Amino acid sequence: PFVGTVSLLVYVTVRAFTPPAKPKDVPVNMKIQKESAKVVNMVDIEDLGDKISYCRCWRSKKFPLCDGSHNKHNEETGDNVGPLVLQRKEAAK
Amino acid sequence: PFVGTVSLLVYVTVRAFTPPAKPKDVPVNMKIQKESAKVVNMVDIEDLGDKISYCRCWRSKKFPLCDGSHNKHNEETGDNVGPLVLQRKEAAK
Ligand code: FES
Ligand code: FES
Repeated sequence: PFVGTVSLLVYVTVRAFTPPAKPKDVPVNMKIQKESAKVVNMVDIEDLGDKISYCRCWRSKKFPLCDGSHNKHNEETGDNVGPLVLQRKEAAK
Repeated sequence: PFVGTVSLLVYVTVRAFTPPAKPKDVPVNMKIQKESAKVVNMVDIEDLGDKISYCRCWRSKKFPLCDGSHNKHNEETGDNVGPLVLQRKEAAK
């Protein structure tokens, strides 16, 4: 079956060189509390000290705190994420 | 050149059905301040009101604040991310 064979060859060749479709959006969190439906962290404002950094890259080993892992993540992926830093103006002076 | 043709067919067939390698890590931030090398937000603790939510999904139109976009993101990707919520204990009572 000549037509069948040619069709198959064309299909396979086209498929071989077609890049996979880019997903519209991808998960952000790969590892942290994946058993939870939604990871929300609550912080009491009264308990805040002079300075604290919260992770927004979801790669920190001290999540929800930032441990600097965003730098490796940014290097490896070309990303540009960083923490949310809370600080007391008085302490920063 | 029979061997050459067969090799090519084998190569193309294998390539066609080989799934793309999964990247070890992917960027988290698709759109926000991509001209910046690292997006770090500084917040003065003294200026905090009774309650405020900060985005950690990088999908908010009000970034660095959370606007609820994490819910759509979670639905579309199977992710489980949510905001960091700062609140005053006194106000929560
Ligand atoms: S470790 Fe995640 S933002 Fe720093
Ligand atoms: S919109 Fe990003 S965490 Fe809510």
